[in-house]
Amino acid sequence: MNRIQVLAFDVFGTVVDWYGSVSREVEKIGLDVDPDAFTLAWRRGYAPAMQRVRSGELGWTRLDTLHRMILDDLLKQFGVSGLPEEKIRHLNRVWHRLEPWPDSVAGLYRLKQRFTICTLSNGNLGLLSNMAKRAHLPWDCILCAEIFRHYKPDPQTYLGVARVFDVLPEEVLMVAAHHQDLEAARGCGFKTAYVERPLEFGPNQKKDCSPVSDNTLHSTDLVDLADQLSSWA
Amino acid sequence: MNRIQVLAFDVFGTVVDWYGSVSREVEKIGLDVDPDAFTLAWRRGYAPAMQRVRSGELGWTRLDTLHRMILDDLLKQFGVSGLPEEKIRHLNRVWHRLEPWPDSVAGLYRLKQRFTICTLSNGNLGLLSNMAKRAHLPWDCILCAEIFRHYKPDPQTYLGVARVFDVLPEEVLMVAAHHQDLEAARGCGFKTAYVERPLEFGPNQKKDCSPVSDNTLHSTDLVDLADQLSSWA
Repeated sequence: MNRIQVLAFDVFGTVVDWYGSVSREVEKIGLDVDPDAFTLAWRRGYAPAMQRVRSGELGWTRLDTLHRMILDDLLKQFGVSGLPEEKIRHLNRVWHRLEPWPDSVAGLYRLKQRFTICTLSNGNLGLLSNMAKRAHLPWDCILCAEIFRHYKPDPQTYLGVARVFDVLPEEVLMVAAHHQDLEAARGCGFKTAYVERPLEFGPNQKKDCSPVSDNTLHSTDLVDLADQLSSWA
Repeated sequence: MNRIQVLAFDVFGTVVDWYGSVSREVEKIGLDVDPDAFTLAWRRGYAPAMQRVRSGELGWTRLDTLHRMILDDLLKQFGVSGLPEEKIRHLNRVWHRLEPWPDSVAGLYRLKQRFTICTLSNGNLGLLSNMAKRAHLPWDCILCAEIFRHYKPDPQTYLGVARVFDVLPEEVLMVAAHHQDLEAARGCGFKTAYVERPLEFGPNQKKDCSPVSDNTLHSTDLVDLADQLSSWA
């Protein structure tokens, strides 16, 4: 553990609260839909959309565009019509305006004092930059699928982080609230830290956040992660 | 000018003082060479090395590797032998440790309040991240040749910045101390700001910093640039 130099963070769900941010905005703009159902449906479209890129069915397509494809379908499914193009574009960019979890900014500032902290997200560069600027997320570097032209959990993404910083895979700690992401990172030789985010899918969905022994660390939030890592000093 | 949303910065020479930083370190480690001549020769190798990539003679090669190729040649040319591999590697990474000009950090913090500020440098991601962390350069996003797989002044780099942030080319202001860079940016539709850095090549080399009327702005340093841009509010 003392060899860790770089912390690579999953973003959606791990650092920011996509469910709360999207559902609040859907409600606020007065879209005539159930915000909970609409938000969960939007997010459910995410993995299949990326899978179309990963499988080669679609050429490289960044997440803003995938989000828009899913949104266009959803508006039909939920019977929303007549929304002006400008409003649809603004709504699609709600993913640039996601709010951090209450511990995220404080935790990242502490972790940044000792480690290089970067994103490793399926979000695109513009999305992640706008989000970081608005939410004061102090990344040392924004790395993402758009740079590596592969979506997680493709190994090219994890190995790309190690290559960028010229470190060994075991010198990178992947931090995520999703076991699939951590498992793929371990497959590339990374250390892994799980973060509990029991409310990731909103108050009506149970999420199993119990520890998995394969992870190097298990943390309740990013401040807890900073506490645990400082004890390894 | 009121439409500017993104400021893209050249880094070597514009934001950081490569001559002073490299020559001081060459002197400090006691390399038996003239620090001034050695530093200038290292930098003189930069454009031809990138040209080998731009022409297709070399496949994509990041700047750390090009710097090392030039350094290996230079050590021979300057008659330096027997330097351990670890010391050569450390010396090569002096480009990660360049110091900002005295106005850079203050200027960038002011500009960041109103604009998205990013790098557009021929340096690689790891180099620019390490530099920013050490020198407290508050980039919203690090963009560079390594992301676009093209070196400046190839148009793919400038157009890549506009694409990342989903803005029009005329909504980006390229900031640089080099007219060639600004000219290429203008060719892609960018606005341009020149920054005077009369000491870029050290105290023994004259640099003509006189205004060129094609530029949108001419500034003495980054604080002056922030002053000028705030008057456009």
